[in-house]
Amino acid sequence: MVNRSIGRETILEIPFPANFRLKSLSSDLYDICFMTVYINFSTPVEGDFEIDTSKVFNQPFTRYPKEVVEKIKKTLPRFKEKFSTMVVCGMGGSSLGAKTIDSFARAFNEANHGLVFLDNVDPTLVKQTLESLDWKNTVFCFVSKSGTTLETVVFLNLVLEELRRRNLPVEEHVIFVGDRGKSFEEMANSLGCEFFEIPSDVDGRFSVLTSTGLVPSFFADFDIDELWEGAREVLRDQSEDNPAIKLAKYKMDNYLNKGRNVSVMFTYGNYLFPFSFWYSQLWAESLGKEGKGQTPLKALGTVDQHSLVQLFREGPDDKVYQFVKAREIKWDTQLPEHTQILDYIANKKVSEIFRALYEGTKEALIQTGRPVISIELDRYSAFNLGYLFMLYMLATVAAAQILGINPFGQPGVELGKRIAKERLQKGL
Amino acid sequence: MVNRSIGRETILEIPFPANFRLKSLSSDLYDICFMTVYINFSTPVEGDFEIDTSKVFNQPFTRYPKEVVEKIKKTLPRFKEKFSTMVVCGMGGSSLGAKTIDSFARAFNEANHGLVFLDNVDPTLVKQTLESLDWKNTVFCFVSKSGTTLETVVFLNLVLEELRRRNLPVEEHVIFVGDRGKSFEEMANSLGCEFFEIPSDVDGRFSVLTSTGLVPSFFADFDIDELWEGAREVLRDQSEDNPAIKLAKYKMDNYLNKGRNVSVMFTYGNYLFPFSFWYSQLWAESLGKEGKGQTPLKALGTVDQHSLVQLFREGPDDKVYQFVKAREIKWDTQLPEHTQILDYIANKKVSEIFRALYEGTKEALIQTGRPVISIELDRYSAFNLGYLFMLYMLATVAAAQILGINPFGQPGVELGKRIAKERLQKGL
Repeated sequence: MVNRSIGRETILEIPFPANFRLKSLSSDLYDICFMTVYINFSTPVEGDFEIDTSKVFNQPFTRYPKEVVEKIKKTLPRFKEKFSTMVVCGMGGSSLGAKTIDSFARAFNEANHGLVFLDNVDPTLVKQTLESLDWKNTVFCFVSKSGTTLETVVFLNLVLEELRRRNLPVEEHVIFVGDRGKSFEEMANSLGCEFFEIPSDVDGRFSVLTSTGLVPSFFADFDIDELWEGAREVLRDQSEDNPAIKLAKYKMDNYLNKGRNVSVMFTYGNYLFPFSFWYSQLWAESLGKEGKGQTPLKALGTVDQHSLVQLFREGPDDKVYQFVKAREIKWDTQLPEHTQILDYIANKKVSEIFRALYEGTKEALIQTGRPVISIELDRYSAFNLGYLFMLYMLATVAAAQILGINPFGQPGVELGKRIAKERLQKGL
Repeated sequence: MVNRSIGRETILEIPFPANFRLKSLSSDLYDICFMTVYINFSTPVEGDFEIDTSKVFNQPFTRYPKEVVEKIKKTLPRFKEKFSTMVVCGMGGSSLGAKTIDSFARAFNEANHGLVFLDNVDPTLVKQTLESLDWKNTVFCFVSKSGTTLETVVFLNLVLEELRRRNLPVEEHVIFVGDRGKSFEEMANSLGCEFFEIPSDVDGRFSVLTSTGLVPSFFADFDIDELWEGAREVLRDQSEDNPAIKLAKYKMDNYLNKGRNVSVMFTYGNYLFPFSFWYSQLWAESLGKEGKGQTPLKALGTVDQHSLVQLFREGPDDKVYQFVKAREIKWDTQLPEHTQILDYIANKKVSEIFRALYEGTKEALIQTGRPVISIELDRYSAFNLGYLFMLYMLATVAAAQILGINPFGQPGVELGKRIAKERLQKGL
């Protein structure tokens, strides 16, 4: 931990000996540790909450799913050889993680294998998606822990019907991901399809590092070993100094002691934006219980500088801000030597403009006295995304401990589901 | 106004004699008025705020921009003949409205003309977008009231450079939209390009029904006359019974008297989702001032039933909910006669599943005692979108009156812009 001061910001910086890739570094290079994830808090971390760290780190989602990884490496190359596209069919925790991975990958990978997501029963979307597919070159991955998620079962029935209509073999075009002993395993067995397990003690929204996220990732040429290395990096120091614990304390201090009931996730860049959807689900669904819960708000930089920043700076002081940005960008463009209208952008790179706008907005919020957490990745990489996933899952469990609630399960959505089911059964 | 009761809901329903299209109805059909927009409140509209209605309805954005519409109809067909794609380059109020229109159109139009949006200086996005274009078949529409929006000027310089590199005539491939007398009009004149005016007294985020929204709309085969008919429908009754006034009172009552500082826009359907981005900017940037302001939260049904609804039902009672959905969907799919896993969905249409999930979620929130506004459109149409735009712009002005603030301008974003500019000038 290093305390340092940059300009007006008093920064608590937590450096990590990251890019720590055993497979790529020889032993005498261990000392060369590239910093890859930087976390700063614009105000001191107060929150003197007591945390039982052993309970935070001893969670099912922190276990490396060795068998699944081995099965993926053995089984999926056959699908990659045959198919160029995988359609991931799943709702919420069954797709948001893979969507984040897919988007991240597009910022640095030149992958040949594409993911498409079917994650809403919007009738127009369903029709347009299914009609636009090149079915012969497509494999469908159905993800549902329970195997009875209404929307996902709708997709399944539509896809099975269409495969039959086209005389395409179901066992080649369909993969199932779900809990053992539930309907998806049964379907896989009866249809002769591949089945990948989600450990039953890992909740859907904490399952991105299990089959849920890893099967689509591997298909999309995203390095799942590196993803797990990043995740493991967060587990290295299991004390209260762990950044996940600090993050939880900081946010809960702002919520419980300062009434900041909105938690902004301000991702800079379109390729990072899906992370804010994954985060929103995790934070809202895990902590929104017993009248408690901080509302997650997604913001996209620089777009939302033109939409939400006015409220952030001059509206009520009821928010805590998390900025996430990658420092280095693989693909960039340079502006011409002579520019029209604004001469000070001549010869600049687009990434410099982007960074200046990011710094300007962050600095303006800090000057206004808003609590700002900034998380900077050295670049888009599987390692850094694995780090982010684990950081936020642990922070969520720690925050739940501070709130005294159970972060798992989602009892509040059952009534809506029951009403929907009744309406369908009664033909309303 | 009709007060009626449906099940548990006490509903204040405001029916409108809409689909009132002079051009398509003969005079003896005037009596046949299709209801097209239904607005319900789940709890009584309390809020006894006094509103000076004349000030609400007498706003520059309520003026029909006759000259612009005529110029569009005269000028744009030539571009439509030549080009299949228009890239709309603009930030915030300069693109969110057109994005909403574009998305809406995709739900019912089989248009030949496509819109692409360049609305972020994410370097990867910029590079990938510019490289993916078929430049010969593309026209660029630059939108900025001031003509100096940093991001838009970046796009402009990149596009001009690339057009020159490709020996493509700038005057044919570029259109400008902005205030008179500002840099975009000057650029248009010096380059020989078409220029469309945004009235200088209409703020960017209130400008969707001027050139800002109408130029891209017309290009994308969206009926701009019908859009304005829908907008005019809201202006018909300028009393306190106007639904925009009721909407503002209801939301401000929940905010000021009941501490509900989050205003959820729960759009059902991917094609409606961009409306929540347009709404978020309007609500946040107009009302987020002097320590006041209600935070807009975007939610997408049914996706966010799996992400935010747990918080909505069992989290703090600090939100007011607006549901928006279209009743009839043009493109639908039927499930097979026999279904796997869930037999009660056999033979159902996807739209029925979608509706049941929508009703279930809404009903569950109402049963929990949450304040729910539901806005149902009979279908996706230009008329209904025009109605929505005008409804929310008026409601925003009325809410600002209740809060005692000026809904126009965005002083809170200036500091961030200045810091960004300084960094770029100093090469930081």
